[in-house]
Amino acid sequence: MDTLELIEKENYTIVQMNRGKVNAINYEMVKELGEVFKKLEDDPDVMGVILSGQPHYFSAGLDLIELYQYDKEQIQQFFTAFGALYLQLVQFKKPFISAITGHSPAGGCVLAVTSDNRFMADGEAYVIGLNEVAVNIQISQNLTEIYAFWMGDGLAHRYILEGKLLSGKEALDAGLVDELVPLDQVFERSERQMKHYMKADQEILINTKKKLRKRLWDKLDLNAENALQEASVLWWKPEIRAKMKAYLESFTNKNKK
Amino acid sequence: MDTLELIEKENYTIVQMNRGKVNAINYEMVKELGEVFKKLEDDPDVMGVILSGQPHYFSAGLDLIELYQYDKEQIQQFFTAFGALYLQLVQFKKPFISAITGHSPAGGCVLAVTSDNRFMADGEAYVIGLNEVAVNIQISQNLTEIYAFWMGDGLAHRYILEGKLLSGKEALDAGLVDELVPLDQVFERSERQMKHYMKADQEILINTKKKLRKRLWDKLDLNAENALQEASVLWWKPEIRAKMKAYLESFTNKNKK
Amino acid sequence: MDTLELIEKENYTIVQMNRGKVNAINYEMVKELGEVFKKLEDDPDVMGVILSGQPHYFSAGLDLIELYQYDKEQIQQFFTAFGALYLQLVQFKKPFISAITGHSPAGGCVLAVTSDNRFMADGEAYVIGLNEVAVNIQISQNLTEIYAFWMGDGLAHRYILEGKLLSGKEALDAGLVDELVPLDQVFERSERQMKHYMKADQEILINTKKKLRKRLWDKLDLNAENALQEASVLWWKPEIRAKMKAYLESFTNKNKK
Repeated sequence: MDTLELIEKENYTIVQMNRGKVNAINYEMVKELGEVFKKLEDDPDVMGVILSGQPHYFSAGLDLIELYQYDKEQIQQFFTAFGALYLQLVQFKKPFISAITGHSPAGGCVLAVTSDNRFMADGEAYVIGLNEVAVNIQISQNLTEIYAFWMGDGLAHRYILEGKLLSGKEALDAGLVDELVPLDQVFERSERQMKHYMKADQEILINTKKKLRKRLWDKLDLNAENALQEASVLWWKPEIRAKMKAYLESFTNKNKK
Repeated sequence: MDTLELIEKENYTIVQMNRGKVNAINYEMVKELGEVFKKLEDDPDVMGVILSGQPHYFSAGLDLIELYQYDKEQIQQFFTAFGALYLQLVQFKKPFISAITGHSPAGGCVLAVTSDNRFMADGEAYVIGLNEVAVNIQISQNLTEIYAFWMGDGLAHRYILEGKLLSGKEALDAGLVDELVPLDQVFERSERQMKHYMKADQEILINTKKKLRKRLWDKLDLNAENALQEASVLWWKPEIRAKMKAYLESFTNKNKK
Repeated sequence: MDTLELIEKENYTIVQMNRGKVNAINYEMVKELGEVFKKLEDDPDVMGVILSGQPHYFSAGLDLIELYQYDKEQIQQFFTAFGALYLQLVQFKKPFISAITGHSPAGGCVLAVTSDNRFMADGEAYVIGLNEVAVNIQISQNLTEIYAFWMGDGLAHRYILEGKLLSGKEALDAGLVDELVPLDQVFERSERQMKHYMKADQEILINTKKKLRKRLWDKLDLNAENALQEASVLWWKPEIRAKMKAYLESFTNKNKK
């Protein structure tokens, strides 16, 4: 695997995203995440999974620089695969914890909200949130449902509509993250939670997660092609493409300085 | 229009309720609000609406003094029109912000909860809430759903059942209002939010609002006659009519002093 | 009645659980609670009910020492009766307040979450929560829905999955309890709330409670046998029975010291 590193513990696995400094999500990473989580779900020796990023970046979200180069077929394929990925993760049966080691906007937040717990690095700089409106990407109905599951309908409405990125403190108050911990303790805290889950009867634990998520699954359109169809079409709207280009140029120029 | 004043800005409109000092809602005001919002929704040059009140009163709610004089047909007509109004507002497609310039109990709160954002004048005295139980009016199923959308099922249950009016601080903590700002900054804050929305791709913004509200719309009975039928019937229950009379007399006497 | 004491007030009744120091719930208590609430619901002179416990214990939950002795038929019968009880209480039509006089874990919390208000004794020691995962009991879908009704889907997911017992402060922040009051004022506060409800038009009050609970009832499986069928089956899983035995022994040894 090129984009992920696996760290196997006694009865759980840490999946560390490992694609450059910011873990921008491209097609390859989506495919590898899907395959790894499938394997871990089927492996009877693995009782849970921790997903983590790199210091300062859990994931910067979709790799817009690479996606901007995709043709229509590739974009369609990417969005369908990404839709399938988060639907797979949100239905992952075993305990699943996000060790949020830094920034986690847009697509990075999408991965995080599929898990059972979110421990986020403290620090005023780090942000998290579904800010799709601010970056001219059409959010799916599914993602509004998942966000609202964690923070309630009212806050999800307010924050998604304004395309807001939340500070750690705001995310904590909103219920989007469970706890803020210093960056160098994010792993330790996540592993402590996983070990807590390991003490429960595993049949009861998995039954219980299923019941707790039933109300969410019932709200989702589980067909991945439908889920991001609209995003895929609006991607090519000329005004949006122009805004995306300007955004990428500002971004590239900033990095050059 | 007798009850409203429109202030047209470059690409949005401020609708200022303007019926006396307290903006009590009568049949005329309901009709005018319905017509104005219809016109603004259809006008391609208007990208959003801010609804505001007068200093100290967003709206005192239904004009019980006038309503007490209505005959059966008029009450039926009023409640149907009011039901139709809030169903229209809750389905308004464009960004819609309430500039809550003061008190906003009962019917005033009904208008406010249909919007996307609520910026409320700070000040211990100002109150907001669906206190129908306390004033002997039967709340509709729809309004319980809308209230719960913003503050969650649990708080909505507690506050509606006890007929509670919330202070600004309580409303903020409950998620019923977004921010408290000094009275003289309520407009400025509301306009700043509207200008923020104007920066987004308008197609994505409107799509996104629709997705965020889907879960709410699915819960509502969109037939306005059904919505307030029960309120209309209970209005004439002798014990309730006696209580209403006593309430109005105490109110009139207080104002005479 | 052997497990309950009734205190009749002018127009409401206090039902005091009265089974030893900790009010552990056995089959007899379940049956008596069901009968008493049925009688109170049908009595036109009773306008509301307050459920209370003993000082320091609202209820310690299911009487696992007695239940451990039950045979298969008795366990099946107990779980069906307990499922029927909480479904009856959650559908109780009149105002219903829990005066939480102390600890209220697991089954104790189940009773409390069926009521309209929860006033809990302050004190760092007292805990409340659906910690079924931690004590190897399979929680039902229904209870996850009721918990989520009060605290939101996100917190309910997090706390139920980790089998968490909440301190009073945590329960207050989560919306699981309404207010913390000193132990010697729990009754007074509960009665004050009941007297507040008595001031409303009782037809409007009961209509309103029904509307507020509609969204919850719609989510519940109202067949009591289904509700706890899974708990009843998993009760006999050898690993769980062994854990339960060890738990009870540790508990008995602790009490001997």
